[in-house]
Amino acid sequence: MGAEIGVGRVDEFTGQLWKIWKRLRDEGIHQRLHLGLFRSDYLLHSPEKGGPVSLKQVEFNTISSSFGALSENVSKLHRYLALSTEYFNSSPFLTLKNLPRNDTIAGLADGLAAAHEAYDSPSAWILFVVQAGERNVFDQRWLEYELLEQHSIRVVRQTFDELATSAEVVPGSRILRVKLPGLLPRGAESVEISTVYFRAGYTPRDYPTLAQYRTRYVLESSVAIKCPTIQLQLAGGKKVQEVLTQGDTLSRFGQGLDLDALRSSWMGMWGLDKDGDYGVRRAREQADKLVLKPQREGGGNNVYKGDIPGFLDTLPAGEREAWIAMELIEPPDTGNYLVRAGSGTEGAVKTEVVSELGVFGYALFGPRRPIEEQEVGWLLRTKGKDSNEGGVAVGFSVLDSLVLVD
Amino acid sequence: MGAEIGVGRVDEFTGQLWKIWKRLRDEGIHQRLHLGLFRSDYLLHSPEKGGPVSLKQVEFNTISSSFGALSENVSKLHRYLALSTEYFNSSPFLTLKNLPRNDTIAGLADGLAAAHEAYDSPSAWILFVVQAGERNVFDQRWLEYELLEQHSIRVVRQTFDELATSAEVVPGSRILRVKLPGLLPRGAESVEISTVYFRAGYTPRDYPTLAQYRTRYVLESSVAIKCPTIQLQLAGGKKVQEVLTQGDTLSRFGQGLDLDALRSSWMGMWGLDKDGDYGVRRAREQADKLVLKPQREGGGNNVYKGDIPGFLDTLPAGEREAWIAMELIEPPDTGNYLVRAGSGTEGAVKTEVVSELGVFGYALFGPRRPIEEQEVGWLLRTKGKDSNEGGVAVGFSVLDSLVLVD
Repeated sequence: MGAEIGVGRVDEFTGQLWKIWKRLRDEGIHQRLHLGLFRSDYLLHSPEKGGPVSLKQVEFNTISSSFGALSENVSKLHRYLALSTEYFNSSPFLTLKNLPRNDTIAGLADGLAAAHEAYDSPSAWILFVVQAGERNVFDQRWLEYELLEQHSIRVVRQTFDELATSAEVVPGSRILRVKLPGLLPRGAESVEISTVYFRAGYTPRDYPTLAQYRTRYVLESSVAIKCPTIQLQLAGGKKVQEVLTQGDTLSRFGQGLDLDALRSSWMGMWGLDKDGDYGVRRAREQADKLVLKPQREGGGNNVYKGDIPGFLDTLPAGEREAWIAMELIEPPDTGNYLVRAGSGTEGAVKTEVVSELGVFGYALFGPRRPIEEQEVGWLLRTKGKDSNEGGVAVGFSVLDSLVLVD
Repeated sequence: MGAEIGVGRVDEFTGQLWKIWKRLRDEGIHQRLHLGLFRSDYLLHSPEKGGPVSLKQVEFNTISSSFGALSENVSKLHRYLALSTEYFNSSPFLTLKNLPRNDTIAGLADGLAAAHEAYDSPSAWILFVVQAGERNVFDQRWLEYELLEQHSIRVVRQTFDELATSAEVVPGSRILRVKLPGLLPRGAESVEISTVYFRAGYTPRDYPTLAQYRTRYVLESSVAIKCPTIQLQLAGGKKVQEVLTQGDTLSRFGQGLDLDALRSSWMGMWGLDKDGDYGVRRAREQADKLVLKPQREGGGNNVYKGDIPGFLDTLPAGEREAWIAMELIEPPDTGNYLVRAGSGTEGAVKTEVVSELGVFGYALFGPRRPIEEQEVGWLLRTKGKDSNEGGVAVGFSVLDSLVLVD
């Protein structure tokens, strides 16, 4: 993925993060623990109509995994409607017992609290690094309230630009402090940060100038536990996802796990730079069953099926290494209603849909200690089958709930 | 209190309720259980500046006792602010430990659920009788959600006018049913009602015509448990409060209680019709320490101090029996800020205030069974000292929280 060779050479954003990581590594890492609040996303795969159905992984998110709190609230909405209306007897499956509980908020907060506890300074606060004018704030505040009310941990929300002046790493101890003048009891000027939770920094748009990368470096260079560290963020890249599918790579990391079961949840993937022209040639041949994905977050950049050959015609050979080809998951046909707020009866549109399941979990890990990890909840996003991208906040899809049936 | 003699002769509203009660009694009572969700209101009394302080009862509410749910949420707000800001160290008393929990919502719902259970028909619903265009709905919905989520009991909200056509008492069984065509699963047309919870019907404004009294009669004549029955509503009248203070009346009801402790929480009271002209004469003499209260709910009808002699000059002798005189409670001097929503910094006004404590409880009682009763929570309303009336929703006072200090 490096900045001089690999993905980072082609993708400016990955390259910048890689450079920060190298600098941190060269200067010496001061906090060896990593916290990840992860979300692993899956689609149902059914290549033959009416044939067997399996779960296939779309991607694995290692930074800013979102919609956990909103998903829990949508689950509560659907459970409330089951309890209060029995869904007007419209389906024997729509019963309270078939609608599983979703306690993602408590679970994700447990993860942040585990890091806070490992840091071992009870009066420290947790820092949420957020985007300016964040629209997803209602997904984030629940975690803040849960931390306060269930764990007595305070949270401060700041943007990279605010942190450029408010954050400092104390020389020597490398403690991260954030200045909050006039806002603290007993005349204190700043608070110690136990854990940095990034809900920003996952997209190049969060780094319009080098100043934001500099602030990221400052945060990373402290003894605060990062969720995630810059290297854990990089490990969530699509290139890493692809490399893990190659040959025997997985067995280097998955000791003691059922690797075949894990591999069976993956679609075929390869880099476009694989074996000279082979990667591109194969992508042309199988274009109708493929999606090409660049090393970039946020949706809207993928190239699908019929668009692939034309795209490959214009892709400079030097940029191939930034792209992976992935076999398309083929979800079974399902009909459902998509409901849009504030549109009355016309807001409910019946359509063919695809539902994407996200499974949340956290892991706190580092050298010479057992991994603290927990699966904590889930997200279901349902979108019209014609929409190729998965982001909820951009309006393509709706939040949904699981119905479990035997 | 009767309709022909007593309060009901002078006060049309009390008279109508009394007539319904007499009719029910004559026809035979079909449900002997009463449910009360009560609120007993108190002020601090400190007649000598700097002297001892005691709690004195203002009134005892037996119908539509409100602001329980909102008060719980205000307590949560104040506890949240203590947790998140420590109130900027502004007072050593403002700590989380001094801000008691307030679980009124669960407690009031427990009361309604106790009646539902005593009725013993699990699939029955609870009926909330509400005012049209109710502005206090956000105080009521919490109880509905709590009943649904914690007790799996459904609630239907209807006004007297809706119930005029939707409610029916099944001949023979006297079961109360409410029609909800098209809104029920499995093609059902109506639901059985276990408990009627009146959040309307406490003021003459809820009975603009005789039709609403007729509907009240229909509900009362069923086997559903009423919260409250019409007779329990009448027992909450100010005249009853006054009569209980006279001579040895209390000992007829308070076996086994510490009656002196109870009496010590009462101010002196008498009827204006007491002993010929004595009641009025005494009210003139002590006017500066008195409030005159009519038998009417809702605030705005009381006559205070200097206004009393002029008022007595115009009060027809025949209407004296509808009024009681009560010694004014004299709260100690206290300063506080009243905060008005949406007014920014100017919304906080420092002023002399009086705080009124309401204590919520429920009781389910009837012949030949032990009383099921529970104290469940509290309400604190704080108002500017110049405002004589106590209603929150009319804008005179603000919701507040208790701070307990040794």
